Amino acid sequence: MRLDDLDPSDPEGTIAAAVERVSNWGRWGQDDVLGTMNFLDDATRAAAGGLIRSGRAISLAQAFDMDGPQRGWRRRTNPIHTMLDTGTDAVAGIQGFPHGLGGADDMVTMPLQCSTQWDGLGHIFDHGRTWNGRPADQVVTSLGDSRTGIETVRDVIAGRAVLLDVGRAFGVDGELPDGFAITEEHLERTIAAQGPSSAVGRGDIVLVRTGQLRRARRDGWGEYAGGPAPGLSFTTVDWLHRTEISAIATDTWGFEVRPNEFHEAFQPLHQVAIPHIGLFLGEMWDFEELGEACAADARFDCWLTAAPIPVTGAVGAPVNPLAVR
Amino acid sequence: MRLDDLDPSDPEGTIAAAVERVSNWGRWGQDDVLGTMNFLDDATRAAAGGLIRSGRAISLAQAFDMDGPQRGWRRRTNPIHTMLDTGTDAVAGIQGFPHGLGGADDMVTMPLQCSTQWDGLGHIFDHGRTWNGRPADQVVTSLGDSRTGIETVRDVIAGRAVLLDVGRAFGVDGELPDGFAITEEHLERTIAAQGPSSAVGRGDIVLVRTGQLRRARRDGWGEYAGGPAPGLSFTTVDWLHRTEISAIATDTWGFEVRPNEFHEAFQPLHQVAIPHIGLFLGEMWDFEELGEACAADARFDCWLTAAPIPVTGAVGAPVNPLAVR
Amino acid sequence: MRLDDLDPSDPEGTIAAAVERVSNWGRWGQDDVLGTMNFLDDATRAAAGGLIRSGRAISLAQAFDMDGPQRGWRRRTNPIHTMLDTGTDAVAGIQGFPHGLGGADDMVTMPLQCSTQWDGLGHIFDHGRTWNGRPADQVVTSLGDSRTGIETVRDVIAGRAVLLDVGRAFGVDGELPDGFAITEEHLERTIAAQGPSSAVGRGDIVLVRTGQLRRARRDGWGEYAGGPAPGLSFTTVDWLHRTEISAIATDTWGFEVRPNEFHEAFQPLHQVAIPHIGLFLGEMWDFEELGEACAADARFDCWLTAAPIPVTGAVGAPVNPLAVR
Amino acid sequence: MRLDDLDPSDPEGTIAAAVERVSNWGRWGQDDVLGTMNFLDDATRAAAGGLIRSGRAISLAQAFDMDGPQRGWRRRTNPIHTMLDTGTDAVAGIQGFPHGLGGADDMVTMPLQCSTQWDGLGHIFDHGRTWNGRPADQVVTSLGDSRTGIETVRDVIAGRAVLLDVGRAFGVDGELPDGFAITEEHLERTIAAQGPSSAVGRGDIVLVRTGQLRRARRDGWGEYAGGPAPGLSFTTVDWLHRTEISAIATDTWGFEVRPNEFHEAFQPLHQVAIPHIGLFLGEMWDFEELGEACAADARFDCWLTAAPIPVTGAVGAPVNPLAVR
Repeated sequence: MRLDDLDPSDPEGTIAAAVERVSNWGRWGQDDVLGTMNFLDDATRAAAGGLIRSGRAISLAQAFDMDGPQRGWRRRTNPIHTMLDTGTDAVAGIQGFPHGLGGADDMVTMPLQCSTQWDGLGHIFDHGRTWNGRPADQVVTSLGDSRTGIETVRDVIAGRAVLLDVGRAFGVDGELPDGFAITEEHLERTIAAQGPSSAVGRGDIVLVRTGQLRRARRDGWGEYAGGPAPGLSFTTVDWLHRTEISAIATDTWGFEVRPNEFHEAFQPLHQVAIPHIGLFLGEMWDFEELGEACAADARFDCWLTAAPIPVTGAVGAPVNPLAVR
Repeated sequence: MRLDDLDPSDPEGTIAAAVERVSNWGRWGQDDVLGTMNFLDDATRAAAGGLIRSGRAISLAQAFDMDGPQRGWRRRTNPIHTMLDTGTDAVAGIQGFPHGLGGADDMVTMPLQCSTQWDGLGHIFDHGRTWNGRPADQVVTSLGDSRTGIETVRDVIAGRAVLLDVGRAFGVDGELPDGFAITEEHLERTIAAQGPSSAVGRGDIVLVRTGQLRRARRDGWGEYAGGPAPGLSFTTVDWLHRTEISAIATDTWGFEVRPNEFHEAFQPLHQVAIPHIGLFLGEMWDFEELGEACAADARFDCWLTAAPIPVTGAVGAPVNPLAVR
Repeated sequence: MRLDDLDPSDPEGTIAAAVERVSNWGRWGQDDVLGTMNFLDDATRAAAGGLIRSGRAISLAQAFDMDGPQRGWRRRTNPIHTMLDTGTDAVAGIQGFPHGLGGADDMVTMPLQCSTQWDGLGHIFDHGRTWNGRPADQVVTSLGDSRTGIETVRDVIAGRAVLLDVGRAFGVDGELPDGFAITEEHLERTIAAQGPSSAVGRGDIVLVRTGQLRRARRDGWGEYAGGPAPGLSFTTVDWLHRTEISAIATDTWGFEVRPNEFHEAFQPLHQVAIPHIGLFLGEMWDFEELGEACAADARFDCWLTAAPIPVTGAVGAPVNPLAVR
Repeated sequence: MRLDDLDPSDPEGTIAAAVERVSNWGRWGQDDVLGTMNFLDDATRAAAGGLIRSGRAISLAQAFDMDGPQRGWRRRTNPIHTMLDTGTDAVAGIQGFPHGLGGADDMVTMPLQCSTQWDGLGHIFDHGRTWNGRPADQVVTSLGDSRTGIETVRDVIAGRAVLLDVGRAFGVDGELPDGFAITEEHLERTIAAQGPSSAVGRGDIVLVRTGQLRRARRDGWGEYAGGPAPGLSFTTVDWLHRTEISAIATDTWGFEVRPNEFHEAFQPLHQVAIPHIGLFLGEMWDFEELGEACAADARFDCWLTAAPIPVTGAVGAPVNPLAVR
């Protein structure tokens, strides 16, 4: 899809047309719950093992604490970490353990999409349908996602990742401005500029660095959670489908360019990518250290494990993605 | 340490003597926060990459949901997963999104040690001291662990893991009975029986399967959370130190044999392993599928990524450990 | 309605017939959100002030803590109370406050119906309809109850309460057995036995003591939360309507007799009382001390304030009902 | 204490001197847990019953929802209300209840001092001592307040309340400016201006309206939670003691004038009032409707029930105070 083909006044028609082109419904059978994770099979994973060379590990997770960007939209707060037992209690001698033992315990209350996370396949619906055409009101209820809960991919997400540092390729000082729509052309030119280690193929996990997170760290969160941001153009929808990638993640709140490209819209690319392509989207990842490392030796692929915490029935999941090069 | 040397009536003296032998305080400098994760360096990690062969991935996480084993001890409950938005809401037309988009969001409230987890270095104290000799009441307060919070190892825990299937080696039908104390001899004989892929060395993550989880799944949780269990004998303390492993995990609630081996005791091996050796303990891991796979081809080592969710200041952390063979 | 008229094999027909007789839909206009709280007006409340005589105050609240009866049904847990700051922290000198000040703070995570509570009008639906005939899927969504949230009665629930101690009147040692169905005849005979202070009239809050809570305290919670219990018979539905009471509360989990009186049923009296009569139901109240006091001087009415915590949009609400005699 | 006697450079000395004058330690015995609630006895309560005249009930609670003023200070967030079951679920037919019944349930996660609340006696310490001289680290631990938890006053707080509308008496359009320190003289002149119904005596609950809440509602919360505010001057400490009131509440976040009156200080009046006088402080109450009602008929006293939700061991407690006139 070319940018010219996007009619900003017709989100619903444009979305429907895209769905016609890219839908994966039925591709892996009626009972499928894995979507594009079907592309990330054992052989693909085995081949990726060779990317572990220096052994350097880089976490792609943002912090999970109250200094995060959430401001309450749809009740998404920052994580609340509280203690059940502490060292001060232990020293005060009130814990009642024998032989000098003391202990601390803690808990957390958090939206599953408060910080670095995967969108599960139950996160977004198109006209009441979830992945593979299932009725959203039969799948995702107050009891959680009964079919495509994040636990279904608990043992899948490890393999080859490719960093596409669009921020470095097209930004100023490595940062794309808010509102910058990343098109297929930007992606392909970034691949070309970065060289052969950036080739994107079947089963890969694509990591798109925009640089917005670096800006937020420097200037304050501001409207990071939901405000203007660089991100994928709706027009990348065919690329997302054609490349047969297993997942894609950005260093932004919402993956897509914001404001969205239609006059009245909310995350239109999600509406195709998740329920129709069956694609796993990562958001709020941190590519700063990885970006530096890749730029330093011009190697842009790596081994990545990003196995979500398998909260049963979850439509999103916190994750500490760990890249090893 | 031999079993004969353990005086059940003197936990405090026995613990103190063990501390004399195995303490790592100061080994990596006064500011160290990594403990035995210092053994898991880039070179070790690079060498482990070669263990990825078939590409098969196996999650070692138990489920995170209300069907878990927690019964409220020290306010450890099972995870409470609730929805912020649902498919039923979307279909009811009350979400207010444009162009047919619907969405679901969710949150979780959970103790950080409710299911598959790492014990952080701030989890256990010996006579008011935490890892590296720091005063527990200055490090672990109601605000969390200000020095050794789990975020300090966010980018470390990936490398070679070795499964020691003591359950298969010494149990009946692969299960050790509750109260079975695993000694150094059991560990070494398991290694010998399993063959060379089981050799344990510097930086390795050791996975000890007892089979108790399989029993709990079959018979019900019962007292899985805190009751009688097979587990490591206190006498393994020297082995844990000498082998220079980076971490060790079990398929039980509490890592150590329970009831503990002293007349009046509570988790005495923790009291040495965490604050003195600086060792990371994993608990409530699931080795059922991995155990089957290893037994099938007699290869007991694998690549493992077990990067904790980096809740800032946490003394424990949920994790989805992903083994790849 | 007589007990003979209840056909245990036809809950749906029996419920529908009862609705025909007792529905209050439209009685207070199409926009009404107060239901039977309309009966508790200023004049009624003013008259009740005279019931304050000795000034003795009695709380009718059970404790809010982890020793409660909840066992996880529909994710209802007991309250989880955690500290944000403590005295041990203050004494450890880590709080950073000047001039010797120290402080403690705390938080709670709890289902709104975990302990002593009011059922709000959005708690129960009949065939998809909530109070006053509104469609349940337009009123009670993941965002809460947009019409009849408990905050709508924040300034209403204070007035005359009447204790009907059916446990003392018909039980053994003051306790009705589980499964005991309290009928209109039991209520009327209790009133007659207790004397004129028990007369029930318009706007009154009726407190029905069964004695089950005393048994649970003595014998352990067992199945208090959802298991067999004494409680109101479905056949009291006409009495609940005719008396024009504003609310009714019991010392049991579920107000109604359990097992319910139909072969296949779940809380059928709720299905009429809440959405059709618009009646406020209190559950898990504690009438032990009040029962003793009333029996001692044969005065069974009192002033009662039971103003719920006004969580916006809540369908239930914790309350500390305070009786003053 | 006169304003002239306050040395802004010496909070610690000034506090210590005040403690000498007003401490109630030991006044009600060594085991006392009620503090000034000892003044609110049955006789006092009985006399107050006569204040119920028109029967009009007015809630003094602010809303409990995410639109509140909290901004995360010491992890105090606004309440998070989530649904466990909804009307949309019921209509979608996924609940599995028989005979057309549907239901909704909900839960809340909230700091106990997020909205209208009582400070319990375990909330504030002076040099490591809590009410009645107890060591703070033995009383208030991660397990809660083991002596003076809010449940100890579950059956006490109902009686006569007196509104002192200092905002109307000394403010512009009924609002005191931020930073306005209310002195004993302001209180006494307000009493005089309001007339005899405002006389303050033993056991009374004093309600001090500053008007700041009205301003916050009009202009936005801004720094309502912790920023500049009108409030009680430290110099009222003797008045608070001498009057033998049982409790005092304001329509502000922090009861005291802010910034506090010492150069370096944090809530110095709390440090005397709570641990030494044993006084119960109410914060974030809503006196707007009550203020209008009292001004209209020049009657400033009323019956008030403000029984806290008895979370066991809590140092603060949400409350819906209900005034009846």
